[in-house]
Amino acid sequence: MHTIAAQFDEKNYPIYVGTQLFSQATLWAQHIHGSQVLVVTQQPLADFYLAKLQTMLAAYQCDTVLLAQGEENKNLTEWQKIFTALLQKKHERSTTLIALGGGMVGDMTGFAAACYQRGVNYIQVPTSLVAQVDSAIGAKTAINHPLGKNMLGVFYPPQSVFVDLDTLHTLPEREFIAGLAEVIKYALIADQEFFNWLETNMALVLRKDYSALLHVVTTCIHLKKNLVAHDEQDQGVRQLLNFGHTFGHALEAATHYQSWLHGEAVAMGMSIAAHVSVAQGWLSTADLNRIHQLLHAAGLLMPRSTLPTAAELLTWMRRDKKVAQGQMTLILLKGIGHAEKTSIANEEAIREMYVGWITVQKAST
Amino acid sequence: MHTIAAQFDEKNYPIYVGTQLFSQATLWAQHIHGSQVLVVTQQPLADFYLAKLQTMLAAYQCDTVLLAQGEENKNLTEWQKIFTALLQKKHERSTTLIALGGGMVGDMTGFAAACYQRGVNYIQVPTSLVAQVDSAIGAKTAINHPLGKNMLGVFYPPQSVFVDLDTLHTLPEREFIAGLAEVIKYALIADQEFFNWLETNMALVLRKDYSALLHVVTTCIHLKKNLVAHDEQDQGVRQLLNFGHTFGHALEAATHYQSWLHGEAVAMGMSIAAHVSVAQGWLSTADLNRIHQLLHAAGLLMPRSTLPTAAELLTWMRRDKKVAQGQMTLILLKGIGHAEKTSIANEEAIREMYVGWITVQKAST
Repeated sequence: MHTIAAQFDEKNYPIYVGTQLFSQATLWAQHIHGSQVLVVTQQPLADFYLAKLQTMLAAYQCDTVLLAQGEENKNLTEWQKIFTALLQKKHERSTTLIALGGGMVGDMTGFAAACYQRGVNYIQVPTSLVAQVDSAIGAKTAINHPLGKNMLGVFYPPQSVFVDLDTLHTLPEREFIAGLAEVIKYALIADQEFFNWLETNMALVLRKDYSALLHVVTTCIHLKKNLVAHDEQDQGVRQLLNFGHTFGHALEAATHYQSWLHGEAVAMGMSIAAHVSVAQGWLSTADLNRIHQLLHAAGLLMPRSTLPTAAELLTWMRRDKKVAQGQMTLILLKGIGHAEKTSIANEEAIREMYVGWITVQKAST
Repeated sequence: MHTIAAQFDEKNYPIYVGTQLFSQATLWAQHIHGSQVLVVTQQPLADFYLAKLQTMLAAYQCDTVLLAQGEENKNLTEWQKIFTALLQKKHERSTTLIALGGGMVGDMTGFAAACYQRGVNYIQVPTSLVAQVDSAIGAKTAINHPLGKNMLGVFYPPQSVFVDLDTLHTLPEREFIAGLAEVIKYALIADQEFFNWLETNMALVLRKDYSALLHVVTTCIHLKKNLVAHDEQDQGVRQLLNFGHTFGHALEAATHYQSWLHGEAVAMGMSIAAHVSVAQGWLSTADLNRIHQLLHAAGLLMPRSTLPTAAELLTWMRRDKKVAQGQMTLILLKGIGHAEKTSIANEEAIREMYVGWITVQKAST
C-alpha cells in the first residue's frame, strides 16, 4: 500500500492507494472519530462491496443510503436523501460519511458532509478510475443545477481517501476507458515523461496490470496534489486541470448529459483544445498526432454521429464557471507536458476553430 | 452611523448600524467587487425598499429574486430559486448576493452564496430585530429539512452587514416583539447591566425611539461578537447563545412551525430554562420573577391554549443539533447575566421539570 500525504484547503490528510483496503479496520478506525457512519453509495457497488464494508465497520452504527445512478440524478432531490437518512437514523455532528463510488457519489457525499449541521467528517472511497485520479482528490464537492453542471458546491476536504485498485475490476470497461482521459490529461498538462510512459505501457494499463495501475494512479494523484497545493481556491495554476474541460462540459451539456461519459467528453475536449493550440501556433502538428494516437490507443475519441453545432457549443461555454468578465478562459498546450492559460474574448475565433475541428474529425472517421 | 468591526470565521468585516443606509452608495461600493448583484428578498420588503436599493445600485447589473414567506418555505425547493436566478441572469463568480430581509432571507442567501460556484460574496441587510441582533451577526447560514430546523447549512461570513434601524418601523409589531426575546436573551446570559437598562427602558424600546434602538442593537451585536470571537465553530462558549433555544426549537418543531414565531418560542424556552435553573438550585426565585416581569413587559410569554406534551417536547429535543452522544446539553442560568452549560442525561428529570413549568404556566394565566 502506498500512502500519499495530501493537503487541500489547509487540511492535511492521507490518501491510501493499494489492494484489499476493505479489510484494514485498524487503518479506517484512525479516521472515524464518532460512533456513527453513513455509507453513501450506488448500485451495483452496493452489491459488490457493501457487505465487506459493513463487516469491517461492525463496531459502528453503520447506516446506508443508495443514490440513483446517472448524472441526471446528481441533483438537489437526490442529494436531500442523504440528509433524510442522517436525520432518520439520528446521526449527530460526530458522524462520518463514507462516499463509496465514483465521482458522482464522492461529489454529492462531500457536499452533504459540508452542509449537514454545518459540517461533519467524511471519507472518500473512489471506485472509478476518474474518481481515483481526479474527482476524489482535492476538496471540490458539487451537485448539478438544471442550468449547469456542478453549479452548487463548496470546497471541503475529507478525513482521508481510500483508493482500492481492486475496485477497478468491477468498473464497466467503458467507464474505465473514460477515466483514462483524465490520466492522459495530467500527462499532457504537466508531465511529458508520464506521457511517454503511457505511450509505451497503454496495453498493460488496459489489461489492468496491478503495477501499471499503481503507477498511473499514484502519478496522477501526485500531479494533482502539486498543481492544487499552492492554489486551493481555484484561481491560477489549478485551472490547468481544466484542460479539455471547457469544451468537454459544453459537449456534455449540449447533449443534456445523455450521450457522453464525462471522460469521453473530456477526451473530445482535449482533442479540440489541442487543435486550437495548433491553430494558435502553440503546438506542433507532430505533437497533435501523438496526442491523437494515445487517445485512440486508450479507446477514446470514438466517432460520434452527432456533435453539437458551434452555436450550441458556445451557448454552453458562456455558462461555464470559467467565464470571467465575459472573457472565455481556455487552457491550451505549448507542447506535450506543458499547458498554459489564455483568454479569448473573440467568440468568432472559437467558432471557426471548432468548425475546423469538426471537419478534420469527420474526415478522419 | 456606528461601525462595529466584526470577525467571524477568520474574516474581518464591518457591521454598519444607523439610519438611511440605503442612500450611501459609496459605502456599499466598497463591499461590491464585481459588476453584478442579486438582491434576495421577500414581500412586503420588496415593496418597501427594493426601488430604493435598485436606485442606489444603478451602476451594477442588479437582479432580484423573491422568496416565498414563511418558515415552511425555508427549504431546498425555495433555496434553489436563488441559483436559478443566478444562472438565468448569467451571474459569474465575482457576483455579490444581497440578503434584504429577516433571518430566513439572510440564512438562505448566505447559504446560497456559500454554495454558488463554490462560494461568492454576499452582504447581509437584516430588516427584522431578530436578524439585526442575532441571525445576521456571525457566519451561520442554513435551511430547514422536513425532519429538523436549520439542519443544512455552513459557516460562511458576509462581506459586510448593513443594519438600517429605519426598517424596524415597517416590521410587523408581533415580529418586533419576538425579536425582543433575543435581546433579553443576551442580557440574561452575559450582561446584567444591560438587563437593568432594559427593565428601565422597555417603554422607549417598544416606542422604537432611535437612541434606544441603537443602544439595544449595538449592545447585542457587541455581546454576540465577544461570545463568538473565540469560538467560531460552535463548540464552547458560543453555545451559551442557545439559551432558551433547545426548548424553543422543540416547541416550534412540535407545532410544525405553524403557531410560534421563533422569538416567541425562544421566550417560552427561556422561561422553561429559567424554571429548570431554579429547580437545579442555580437561580433564585426573585431573579426568576424579574425575568418573567421583563418578558411580560416586552409583550412576550402570551398565554398559549395548547402546549406540546412532555413526550412531544422530548422527541424533538432529541433531534436537536445540541444533542451529543445521547446527552442533552442545556444552557441554564446561575443568575441574571450569567449562563452556564450543563449536560443532562436523565430525560426523566427534564420531563418532570417541563410538567412542573406547564403547571405554573397554567396557574399564572
